[in-house]
Amino acid sequence: MTIITPWEVKGNVDYDKVITEFGVSRIDEKLLARIQKIAGLHYFLRRNIFFAHRDLGFVLDQHEKGNKFFLYTGRAPSGPVHLGHLIPWLFTKWLQDAFDVELWFQFPDEEKFLFKKELTLEDTERFTFDNMLDVIALGFNPKKTHFLIDTKHAHLMYREAIKVAKHITFSTAKAAFGFTNEQNIGAIFYTSMQAVPAFLPSVLQKKNIPCLIPYAIDQDPHFRVSRDVIPKLGFYKPASIQCRFLPGLGGMQSDGKMSSSAGDEATIYTTDDAKTVKHKVSKHAFSGGKDTVEEHRKYGGNPDIDVSYQWLTFFEEDDEKLKQTYHDYKTGKLLSGELKAMLITKINDFLKGHQKRRDEAKGKIEQYLYKEPKKATSLFMEEQ
Amino acid sequence: MTIITPWEVKGNVDYDKVITEFGVSRIDEKLLARIQKIAGLHYFLRRNIFFAHRDLGFVLDQHEKGNKFFLYTGRAPSGPVHLGHLIPWLFTKWLQDAFDVELWFQFPDEEKFLFKKELTLEDTERFTFDNMLDVIALGFNPKKTHFLIDTKHAHLMYREAIKVAKHITFSTAKAAFGFTNEQNIGAIFYTSMQAVPAFLPSVLQKKNIPCLIPYAIDQDPHFRVSRDVIPKLGFYKPASIQCRFLPGLGGMQSDGKMSSSAGDEATIYTTDDAKTVKHKVSKHAFSGGKDTVEEHRKYGGNPDIDVSYQWLTFFEEDDEKLKQTYHDYKTGKLLSGELKAMLITKINDFLKGHQKRRDEAKGKIEQYLYKEPKKATSLFMEEQ
Repeated sequence: MTIITPWEVKGNVDYDKVITEFGVSRIDEKLLARIQKIAGLHYFLRRNIFFAHRDLGFVLDQHEKGNKFFLYTGRAPSGPVHLGHLIPWLFTKWLQDAFDVELWFQFPDEEKFLFKKELTLEDTERFTFDNMLDVIALGFNPKKTHFLIDTKHAHLMYREAIKVAKHITFSTAKAAFGFTNEQNIGAIFYTSMQAVPAFLPSVLQKKNIPCLIPYAIDQDPHFRVSRDVIPKLGFYKPASIQCRFLPGLGGMQSDGKMSSSAGDEATIYTTDDAKTVKHKVSKHAFSGGKDTVEEHRKYGGNPDIDVSYQWLTFFEEDDEKLKQTYHDYKTGKLLSGELKAMLITKINDFLKGHQKRRDEAKGKIEQYLYKEPKKATSLFMEEQ
Repeated sequence: MTIITPWEVKGNVDYDKVITEFGVSRIDEKLLARIQKIAGLHYFLRRNIFFAHRDLGFVLDQHEKGNKFFLYTGRAPSGPVHLGHLIPWLFTKWLQDAFDVELWFQFPDEEKFLFKKELTLEDTERFTFDNMLDVIALGFNPKKTHFLIDTKHAHLMYREAIKVAKHITFSTAKAAFGFTNEQNIGAIFYTSMQAVPAFLPSVLQKKNIPCLIPYAIDQDPHFRVSRDVIPKLGFYKPASIQCRFLPGLGGMQSDGKMSSSAGDEATIYTTDDAKTVKHKVSKHAFSGGKDTVEEHRKYGGNPDIDVSYQWLTFFEEDDEKLKQTYHDYKTGKLLSGELKAMLITKINDFLKGHQKRRDEAKGKIEQYLYKEPKKATSLFMEEQ
């Protein structure tokens, strides 16, 4: 059985089925051609890694009219960042540069606290700080990127969240998220907080600004609900673009999404050293190769189920090289060990740079935290 | 049928039944004697207007050990303040002076917005400012009184509220407040915010401080729930003391609690002028008198159902004078018109002073708003 909720993804994911069931639209050739013309095409688009959207045409229309949209994505801190988390952020970074737009990055530090019994708020706050380093390391423009931390920015966010909440009944939340009556009332309320960054910039700047939200498809229930509500508050319905999951090392059939719940051994963290990466990929990456070198040479491997190959579609930017790899593996020219070695090199090259930038990020957090333009001297200044 | 929820009180209130059903304890002679010895007895205690409590003995124990408690009460702004609202606050003011303690006064400006379809957040924020003037006019010590406004202080309060929320299931909230699945998720979450001031001072001062909450009995469901949760967060179970409602002008049988939902004509606001008060009492106060002067002189009136007399038990501080009034009315010496005139004078005398202090309060709000001792320069100062 496949389960996809914002808090749990299990089993093989049939993305065609997801499109129908979630009611998102496929990113088709026509839309790709349009994006290509405006901004070029990131390889995540060329390879169908970002595969679905809602109202993407609307933000492109607005863009062409000179009405800039803003980006909104986020990270609910519950542990260290792994490679799977980076996928939507890498794409968001590209969008920020290609369209030259503002990004609001939410760290809902209460979410996983509310949904996971064992996590304390001190845990999630610690991970917030840690996870920010990974986000900053990706090179977002500090002048155009604003971090929002739910508990720290609650004086801005809670006031907006209750406006959303007033329009969502428990019945609706129950249907969208599969809650029972035994769910806690903080978790039930939480989706209202996740809706806020989709219109907070419009509130703060006192004008209606279009919003585009890139996210992995498991977050969709939140935005299905909030897209109905946000127009009732007088703002544009946020547009969105959804990506597939980086599969777990154990293979797409069992681990449709890499998750640290599979255990540290089967998860590659951004802080893993080269030796650890080599060990984890060598040992755990599900192989599409044959049992013996002889058979492999004769019959070839199956790149479509091989995790190393699948991962290269996420991390190898060069289309030609990827195509060649596919061909070589399928024909048996490339052995499983050699394919794994290619992936290991690719990941370690990336992580070497990432870890350096991550280290430098420690002094940069302040630049990214959203601060109000000027502090009111009185909470009631306007009224008095 | 009698209904008592934090959002609606309807019908005659049987306070004996309330004690049993809500599980509060009666304030008995022994407890009164103990309070008398420490602080004297406010006439609201002598007259059983504050009639019930939970763990009051505990805070008195703590007080006697030299471990000061703090007071917490509040006002959910949804309209102008009427005389009924003042009852718990007048008593709270006495408690503050008699025990020389801090008071945390909550203005949950989101509550009525979430529970009343027609109210906007702009409405409740406007009423917050307006209602503060009434609270300040009662003379709370500005050095020891701290106003908390839910949306404005959310950066302090939301973080604590989610800790409460994690311990409350929808089932529990449903049972306590009578919610259906069609209730909005903000209203469902709200009780977590109302719990916060009962332990926020302990969080801010990093020590466990006992809390005493004076309130009208309709707020009890909130504290029934939060008393179970707060000890799980490591704080004392808050103690509480409950008062009866000032009955509506229409009489206790129909209007157990004065409410502006009975219409402006039947509600006395703190800003009503002397003529308006005279008109409202004369026209709307339910009388326990007889139909003719002759009958009244012969058989006497019934002070136990007469609203003017009942109101004097709330506003006439002099026990002897009140006793005399009861006797004179019951024996027919005092006519209904004369009794109403006494009440009108009493209210207008009070309101004259109140309105002057209310006017002066406009420049004093800043003194009462809670401000953090020092602003952290970084949201992550501790971590960095």
